[in-house]
Amino acid sequence: MDPGFVDLGFARVDTSRLARRGFPEVIYCAGKTPAQVREIARSLIAHSPVVLATRAEPAHFDAVREALPDAIHHPVARCIVAQTAPLPRLPGSVALVSAGTSDLPVVEEAVVTLDALGCTVVRVSDAGVAGVHRLLAERERIEACSVVVVVAGMEGALPSVVAGLVSRPVIAVPTSIGYGANFGGLAALLGMLNSCGSGVSVVNIDNGFGAAWSAAAICRLLLPKA
Amino acid sequence: MDPGFVDLGFARVDTSRLARRGFPEVIYCAGKTPAQVREIARSLIAHSPVVLATRAEPAHFDAVREALPDAIHHPVARCIVAQTAPLPRLPGSVALVSAGTSDLPVVEEAVVTLDALGCTVVRVSDAGVAGVHRLLAERERIEACSVVVVVAGMEGALPSVVAGLVSRPVIAVPTSIGYGANFGGLAALLGMLNSCGSGVSVVNIDNGFGAAWSAAAICRLLLPKA
Amino acid sequence: MDPGFVDLGFARVDTSRLARRGFPEVIYCAGKTPAQVREIARSLIAHSPVVLATRAEPAHFDAVREALPDAIHHPVARCIVAQTAPLPRLPGSVALVSAGTSDLPVVEEAVVTLDALGCTVVRVSDAGVAGVHRLLAERERIEACSVVVVVAGMEGALPSVVAGLVSRPVIAVPTSIGYGANFGGLAALLGMLNSCGSGVSVVNIDNGFGAAWSAAAICRLLLPKA
Amino acid sequence: MDPGFVDLGFARVDTSRLARRGFPEVIYCAGKTPAQVREIARSLIAHSPVVLATRAEPAHFDAVREALPDAIHHPVARCIVAQTAPLPRLPGSVALVSAGTSDLPVVEEAVVTLDALGCTVVRVSDAGVAGVHRLLAERERIEACSVVVVVAGMEGALPSVVAGLVSRPVIAVPTSIGYGANFGGLAALLGMLNSCGSGVSVVNIDNGFGAAWSAAAICRLLLPKA
Amino acid sequence: MDPGFVDLGFARVDTSRLARRGFPEVIYCAGKTPAQVREIARSLIAHSPVVLATRAEPAHFDAVREALPDAIHHPVARCIVAQTAPLPRLPGSVALVSAGTSDLPVVEEAVVTLDALGCTVVRVSDAGVAGVHRLLAERERIEACSVVVVVAGMEGALPSVVAGLVSRPVIAVPTSIGYGANFGGLAALLGMLNSCGSGVSVVNIDNGFGAAWSAAAICRLLLPKA
Amino acid sequence: MDPGFVDLGFARVDTSRLARRGFPEVIYCAGKTPAQVREIARSLIAHSPVVLATRAEPAHFDAVREALPDAIHHPVARCIVAQTAPLPRLPGSVALVSAGTSDLPVVEEAVVTLDALGCTVVRVSDAGVAGVHRLLAERERIEACSVVVVVAGMEGALPSVVAGLVSRPVIAVPTSIGYGANFGGLAALLGMLNSCGSGVSVVNIDNGFGAAWSAAAICRLLLPKA
Amino acid sequence: MDPGFVDLGFARVDTSRLARRGFPEVIYCAGKTPAQVREIARSLIAHSPVVLATRAEPAHFDAVREALPDAIHHPVARCIVAQTAPLPRLPGSVALVSAGTSDLPVVEEAVVTLDALGCTVVRVSDAGVAGVHRLLAERERIEACSVVVVVAGMEGALPSVVAGLVSRPVIAVPTSIGYGANFGGLAALLGMLNSCGSGVSVVNIDNGFGAAWSAAAICRLLLPKA
Amino acid sequence: MDPGFVDLGFARVDTSRLARRGFPEVIYCAGKTPAQVREIARSLIAHSPVVLATRAEPAHFDAVREALPDAIHHPVARCIVAQTAPLPRLPGSVALVSAGTSDLPVVEEAVVTLDALGCTVVRVSDAGVAGVHRLLAERERIEACSVVVVVAGMEGALPSVVAGLVSRPVIAVPTSIGYGANFGGLAALLGMLNSCGSGVSVVNIDNGFGAAWSAAAICRLLLPKA
Repeated sequence: MDPGFVDLGFARVDTSRLARRGFPEVIYCAGKTPAQVREIARSLIAHSPVVLATRAEPAHFDAVREALPDAIHHPVARCIVAQTAPLPRLPGSVALVSAGTSDLPVVEEAVVTLDALGCTVVRVSDAGVAGVHRLLAERERIEACSVVVVVAGMEGALPSVVAGLVSRPVIAVPTSIGYGANFGGLAALLGMLNSCGSGVSVVNIDNGFGAAWSAAAICRLLLPKA
Repeated sequence: MDPGFVDLGFARVDTSRLARRGFPEVIYCAGKTPAQVREIARSLIAHSPVVLATRAEPAHFDAVREALPDAIHHPVARCIVAQTAPLPRLPGSVALVSAGTSDLPVVEEAVVTLDALGCTVVRVSDAGVAGVHRLLAERERIEACSVVVVVAGMEGALPSVVAGLVSRPVIAVPTSIGYGANFGGLAALLGMLNSCGSGVSVVNIDNGFGAAWSAAAICRLLLPKA
Repeated sequence: MDPGFVDLGFARVDTSRLARRGFPEVIYCAGKTPAQVREIARSLIAHSPVVLATRAEPAHFDAVREALPDAIHHPVARCIVAQTAPLPRLPGSVALVSAGTSDLPVVEEAVVTLDALGCTVVRVSDAGVAGVHRLLAERERIEACSVVVVVAGMEGALPSVVAGLVSRPVIAVPTSIGYGANFGGLAALLGMLNSCGSGVSVVNIDNGFGAAWSAAAICRLLLPKA
Repeated sequence: MDPGFVDLGFARVDTSRLARRGFPEVIYCAGKTPAQVREIARSLIAHSPVVLATRAEPAHFDAVREALPDAIHHPVARCIVAQTAPLPRLPGSVALVSAGTSDLPVVEEAVVTLDALGCTVVRVSDAGVAGVHRLLAERERIEACSVVVVVAGMEGALPSVVAGLVSRPVIAVPTSIGYGANFGGLAALLGMLNSCGSGVSVVNIDNGFGAAWSAAAICRLLLPKA
Repeated sequence: MDPGFVDLGFARVDTSRLARRGFPEVIYCAGKTPAQVREIARSLIAHSPVVLATRAEPAHFDAVREALPDAIHHPVARCIVAQTAPLPRLPGSVALVSAGTSDLPVVEEAVVTLDALGCTVVRVSDAGVAGVHRLLAERERIEACSVVVVVAGMEGALPSVVAGLVSRPVIAVPTSIGYGANFGGLAALLGMLNSCGSGVSVVNIDNGFGAAWSAAAICRLLLPKA
Repeated sequence: MDPGFVDLGFARVDTSRLARRGFPEVIYCAGKTPAQVREIARSLIAHSPVVLATRAEPAHFDAVREALPDAIHHPVARCIVAQTAPLPRLPGSVALVSAGTSDLPVVEEAVVTLDALGCTVVRVSDAGVAGVHRLLAERERIEACSVVVVVAGMEGALPSVVAGLVSRPVIAVPTSIGYGANFGGLAALLGMLNSCGSGVSVVNIDNGFGAAWSAAAICRLLLPKA
Repeated sequence: MDPGFVDLGFARVDTSRLARRGFPEVIYCAGKTPAQVREIARSLIAHSPVVLATRAEPAHFDAVREALPDAIHHPVARCIVAQTAPLPRLPGSVALVSAGTSDLPVVEEAVVTLDALGCTVVRVSDAGVAGVHRLLAERERIEACSVVVVVAGMEGALPSVVAGLVSRPVIAVPTSIGYGANFGGLAALLGMLNSCGSGVSVVNIDNGFGAAWSAAAICRLLLPKA
Repeated sequence: MDPGFVDLGFARVDTSRLARRGFPEVIYCAGKTPAQVREIARSLIAHSPVVLATRAEPAHFDAVREALPDAIHHPVARCIVAQTAPLPRLPGSVALVSAGTSDLPVVEEAVVTLDALGCTVVRVSDAGVAGVHRLLAERERIEACSVVVVVAGMEGALPSVVAGLVSRPVIAVPTSIGYGANFGGLAALLGMLNSCGSGVSVVNIDNGFGAAWSAAAICRLLLPKA
């Protein structure tokens, strides 16, 4: 019987994740050697059309390319994507609203993930609350999407304001942008968790990947039932 | 022109929230006097078929009943619901998985909210990871729902395990159940934010209401387009 | 020579504070016995036309009234005010913007303090960011004031949005309204300290008094030079 | 209609900030690439006579100089200033009191900001409470200013003592100077927030810029009404 | 051989502490039943002329009086003292400087302890830095003592200022007086630990007893060598 | 097939825990209603000879007695024990060393648990490091046991010293005894986690039950192999 | 008389630890110079057949090799082992279960320590709860061991699930793998301390050594009595 | 009149500190440029026979040597000492007890400071509680000193045990030695603040200088009265 995983000794590659979860296993590169990432990727590609690796340093990419020569590196997003075929495109779209230019690396991680998982993205960048007219101008474009991912650092106020304007589920991503009493993104995280705007759920600091996966899982619900 | 709110002096009742957000304004009772809650409820019911109040003490209910005699009190959930007509039922369903019996008040707040917002709920209670067979037995029932709300205190491990088993978006609610290094739910909150299970988003500690709103907003996406 | 204080044994009443600071010493009642507050008030009134006591319980008021029969109790604000003559009215005005009805006790502490110190107050209550149109409707009324005090709990996002709309100095007061990861107002405090809106300064959690004093000190600057 | 901003794709430059807030948008360089800062600066200078960038590394300056050859770098303050014309000088003056020599970089950020915004600065450096006679000697010079910015690290006691001596509004800036249980400025921040000296408001750790903006907004109030 | 303790089952009374440490064992009542405190006191008095119990509730005192009818209760200090003979008076004296009237319970615990251990106390109360002239007036009286205990809540700035004025060792006691970002005395504690005034050492929040013991141990050094 | 649990609706009683884990499910009463505890106990006793409930209030006991009239309440330990037959006695013994008399409620929870699970206990109470001779006198009695549970509050230093003296595995239980910078047991918890004594593992604050279970699981290893 | 230690001036080498504790003193290299480690190792080897040094950098190894040429470096584990003879093999075995590939350095520290102390190790790597079937497949292999060490980062959920499946004592090691609200392993640490799985005890973050020592001390209990 | 300080612009050198406090101003180098330290040292030496600088990097020493060619660098202690004449030797002696070899840099800072201030030091190194016999062997040597400074990292248990053994005042210095839940010395700091050993006062993490100053101030009390 297929146990649903392959044991590489240092890793048990979860080969049944695509079937179970709708999307394949994703490699978290931090703390792994380039050779480990390479071997996990090599093993995964045999069971999934798409392999995504996050938090990837250039050395990880160099190693992955040895096994998967067509892999692509997204350095700002710190992601690697390799695919034998794209995942099916999902219905709906994801609005990706961010507070400031400094938040772009986290935004990029979300964009690369959403694209790899088959989602359509609508970006609204640098729409922070210090000049709220920049956000109000985009209200209708955001409402037209299915789900909203909001990325913000510092005080993390943007998701509350966005949630108050639209009817879509809002997934908030605090970033570590800031200093001092920001405490590495803690201020934004706490702000988002305490949002007075109903319907905001939150992922870990700088976790663009996680928000993208959640948004993609919502878009999957829009697929017509087979 | 309609400003979209009514100014009661001590409160600006957001009368356009139902139109803007798909669900009406909800009253957060903590820190409000019973008379304030009563007057806000009286004002809201003129603009919305359903009024929901959370974190309600019995004194709040007594006051609300003066204005809205048909209001119903859910003491375990600490909620008040009054309605002139139900909100339209939404497609799909919400799995509400909880880790332990002690988490039930938070579960109840979610149940009352989901019901008020028009959602169908499937409950799986006391399925904590200390005996994971109790959860595995329910995998298919959970996968059959559209979205999963997972409520857990202590170490908050349940959302990670649930997320690993199904393809649905998972909204995690940490509870303040526990003691010592639990720090009022902080342990569960941090655990859920750091979940190794992709696609878990998190709301505030004990915020059954917020998770329910997010789940309901996802179910609204399943409405056929007009 | 006048040492600038009177030694009551348990207290050194700062009789030169009005001359030095423009406003008289204010009594912080928490941790003091009613009898101590009474004697400090009795001593202060001999050197200042106005005596203000904050964080006052009813027992403090009862004791103060023994010495100063005309003292007035503001129970929501938890303040006592006694005066032989009002302080001179100050030029300008203070906009007092608050996020929610639950923040009113902190707002009241600020109102009583501003009034005792001679300031004119313009209130804008329950203008939280969950329905930002309620705030935008008041932009001009706020800009017409000299300084803005913004009171908010939960995520404390309101000062950032207000600061982005007007040219006035903004003093933010986080409140302890909220629960869970709010940590007694810490979330709002950190949010305000990390505000992306330039020109926001912050006082302690629930410190309506301190914000009012700062605002009044700004209004004093508008007095014509003697 | 002018939307009040220019969309550069990666940034929405807030071109209406000067009109709305009295001072132009300021560029926060941390987390932005040199090219992004350059393009934002190029866009801003078309709408504002002065461009200020904070937290600037030398690479940011090199890039800005490509677009604005007359820009000036203040390396201790980590600021860049470019101007086509100075902002109008504001009435009054700002006392800038600091506790120790190690706090000077934060002081410099405040000085450069105050100067760019049109304020007159009076410096009192290294007047920490370990030798309080150094501060008492300057009491009258500080009282002669309109507003006081106090910069201190370690225990952050200086604002309390200064506030007790003068009638001016005090804006406190905690610095990250210290070690161990200083926790990166947290000790000074908490000390300032809990100041027993009435009328102290606080900005983020090391936020010389923010305190300066607040002080400048106060000086703007002293402008004769048009 | 004498093991240096008596085993009561629930307690091992340290009968050799007076010989080893110069002062007898002191009973910490919190968490102990009245009967336990009574039996420990009964056992101690057989080995030490003085028995001191701290953090004592009235029920503890009632129980102790059953065994030691001459015991005295100091309710503000929450201490019980019983003695068959006083401990020998120690040379020198201890200045006990406190910041505010609200700090008096902690001051009283220190006073009762110092007295029980044989020390002479000089009190300077309510000399907080919000009016530093109240402290400067007492500089010489403080310098004339051997050691200084400084008690302060809120921002805990007083020990730094005191230490800067005198040559004596300074022991700082943070108190839990304050609210909000005081976090139960944490602000004062961190402030004192980061004091820029050299020669400040710190005890636990509200630990008047511990500071008194340390001061008494210093006074013991002044005893002429036998 | 037996699913290994019984679904009571509000609880899934884990009826296979004794077979899987060697000890039966234990009821954590906090947050459960008396009726819920009663029904869980009633269900458990059908599958296990012993039922243990922790964190039980008197009302829980009253309810349990309705279903299990022979149940016994241990009020200091806050435990309920009901049994149809004792669990088999385990080989070896557990030394239960505690630092102070105030720690006894946590010690009692461990004692009741160890007894219910079949272990022999050797108590050494009030052997804290302030008088280390009280501990040294018991070194051999501790070494003669199989495993050591050390219970201590305040600074939690005792496990380090004990671990340095004996060869047995040490399980440390921090207690919430203390005040101020103890932060509800955090000081003791961190101290124990950072123990310089090798071989110390730690359970949650006040978790006498958990340490007892771990110790009992070690004693089970000493059972002769069947 | 042998004092049980050798005083090197900068170190007191504990030469009686093997006799007292069953295992010899282990050198913690962090914060020590290579020369200090070398001299301590040289001194220890005269009293113990095995010398283990943890947290060793290459420079420490180079220095140790000068004194002990046969020493072996384990760079992933950051350990040095030198031995004149192996310690006696202990009965039983230790299951070493880890959550992810990134946790391997901590696992390696445990493996090297267990081996040096005479234990047999059974590894189960990358069995995290995101795909719990990978763990369930190994249940019987884990139950067959005497004690289980579980290593996990991120939310640290694995020990709870493992403890729920087997009857063996579980020692949990949180790792610092993760980011953001992981706070350097705090999330995993708190999760493990709050485990709903009875019988989990916890060591410091990344402390593979400490868990191994505890497990080895348990295996020593299985030695037949002499 | 002599103002008691010299204003260098960037520094106000406290030239009256020796007269006021018994010891001269000490330069804290962190955050200061080498040139600033050089000029402060040059200014101080004109008013004090001894100049001590702490937290000095080699570049600071190079600069100081330009002004004071006879200055001496203590690199492990990170201190610079320059003197035209030694301060008078003080009576008594200071026991400097440390827990581990890794704590030596903090010990060295204390030694250099004590020597510069005129104190005699008795060292007891590496006497940590993991092998308490190493400490017990030195009890009499410690008791023979006037005051005890105890330096320890990790759990910081040593001051409690030392305080329990001797009658001298104990000043505890937590160090940042450790990892994980040590949180940069926080564990040791909290442990020491919560010491069950009466008469322990505490300085900041790694603050060998501060403990030394406090100890020296105590030794000064032993000077015969003039």
